Amino acid sequence: MEIIKKSKRMVSTSELLKSKGEKIGLVPTMGYLHKGHISLIKRARAECSKVFVSIFVNPIQFGPKDDFARYPRNFKRDCSFSEKAGADYIFFPSTDEMYEKDFKTFVEVQDLGNVMCGRARPGHFRGVCTVVLKLFNIIRPNIAYFGQKDYQQLVIIRKMTKDLNVPVEIAECPTVREEDGLAVSSRNKYLSSDERKNAVVLFQSLKLAEELIINGQKNLEIVRKAALEKLESNPFVSKIDYFDFRDKDMLYEIERIDQKAARILIASAIWIGETRLIDNILLENNF
Amino acid sequence: MEIIKKSKRMVSTSELLKSKGEKIGLVPTMGYLHKGHISLIKRARAECSKVFVSIFVNPIQFGPKDDFARYPRNFKRDCSFSEKAGADYIFFPSTDEMYEKDFKTFVEVQDLGNVMCGRARPGHFRGVCTVVLKLFNIIRPNIAYFGQKDYQQLVIIRKMTKDLNVPVEIAECPTVREEDGLAVSSRNKYLSSDERKNAVVLFQSLKLAEELIINGQKNLEIVRKAALEKLESNPFVSKIDYFDFRDKDMLYEIERIDQKAARILIASAIWIGETRLIDNILLENNF
Repeated sequence: MEIIKKSKRMVSTSELLKSKGEKIGLVPTMGYLHKGHISLIKRARAECSKVFVSIFVNPIQFGPKDDFARYPRNFKRDCSFSEKAGADYIFFPSTDEMYEKDFKTFVEVQDLGNVMCGRARPGHFRGVCTVVLKLFNIIRPNIAYFGQKDYQQLVIIRKMTKDLNVPVEIAECPTVREEDGLAVSSRNKYLSSDERKNAVVLFQSLKLAEELIINGQKNLEIVRKAALEKLESNPFVSKIDYFDFRDKDMLYEIERIDQKAARILIASAIWIGETRLIDNILLENNF
Repeated sequence: MEIIKKSKRMVSTSELLKSKGEKIGLVPTMGYLHKGHISLIKRARAECSKVFVSIFVNPIQFGPKDDFARYPRNFKRDCSFSEKAGADYIFFPSTDEMYEKDFKTFVEVQDLGNVMCGRARPGHFRGVCTVVLKLFNIIRPNIAYFGQKDYQQLVIIRKMTKDLNVPVEIAECPTVREEDGLAVSSRNKYLSSDERKNAVVLFQSLKLAEELIINGQKNLEIVRKAALEKLESNPFVSKIDYFDFRDKDMLYEIERIDQKAARILIASAIWIGETRLIDNILLENNF
């Protein structure tokens, strides 16, 4: 496995590989790899002839109050995990390498980035789109792998790619969960042991909503109320950012289950103590 | 020469050519080709093995009060001009082909798009960047050719390309002028015969500024005053949008000639009757 830190070298490496007809798979990450990332790397390994993992904690997607400085990092472990999962290359640029002095260009997907997580994190998805497009241009993958856990991010990147005719296929990979159901996330590391035990309430509230809908409840305001009650009754939940029902592609709000929508996204963001967690499930709209 | 209207077909054509090692040159235009475009196509012909001309009047770079509907079009003549100048392919997409329903993604270069022409045309350069990035992704040129006449556009596209690691070289080509000095432009067609005769005052005012500087005037406010007087004394000049002295790369304003700046851009936008014209000259800062 080779580690590449410079964009120029990355571009020439990719160009050479592509000229030989290699199929490049990219797993873009912010490092501190966990089971979720590993599953993406393994899938890329199964589908592509060369697998790249990018590791870059992207400053422009963090707000001034976000956890950029304390975001967990462990490059050595990331390398060993990536290699074991089958990566051929790691792209590990410095911040200066990605954002030179006087950097001025930003990519924004309108509307989709203002709802859900975008409300609490203005500019977040603009930062995500900008860095992902840069990574696509530097690494030029045939397929890029994203997890369903960051579902809004997945929708926005897919839309950006389509709107801008970016020649990359976006692969959607299922959320990996701990045994109790908590979605695996680098931020779980912030949780104390009591917080960790209680964090599963997020997944449970999503499952509760799903169950109510499957059992026939069509009024989603009633479903939301029940889910919020479950969350609010847990003393470790310090704040609820949203608990939403949305169209899985365009992210518009769904109010009743019989409203036209191919599949419904049930998504929520809550705070356990000082840690913000997100999760979601997708529901076929055939009730 | 082949005419291609669909992005998909364009992508597969380009991919095939690139896999054969062809060097692709792109001249992006809004059609109604003139001597300026022809010079770009000829330069592409000299430097590349395959030459593409794109013809697309891009609605998202026009404001509500701009001349989108009346912008001149003549596809048949454009084809004949392109072929004669050496083009191999014309990419001629419809508006729907470029902007599907629910199009939401925009690319913006901050600051550089708010000054000069950006002041009078908010959103204009965002529209330009977005369409140019789309064209780059669809056609995947090695080199794209832009005229110095739209100098601010050239600077912004170069910055976007660099910031986003877009794998395209931006070639800068000199402004082509009529015999009297008027910069060639599709919009010159709007001018009546009297207006056309007087439109040369724009170039003359730039040359006057250049002459004053060459003769030793270091205070650019004095130079600007002289240039504005020349413009204002012409009865066909109905409005002056700006007459600016700027750094040629970052477009910041220069106030004195001894201020540090590699080369100075002298640029102006004026209205002759109902028609907005722009022009500029570059001046070495070695006085």
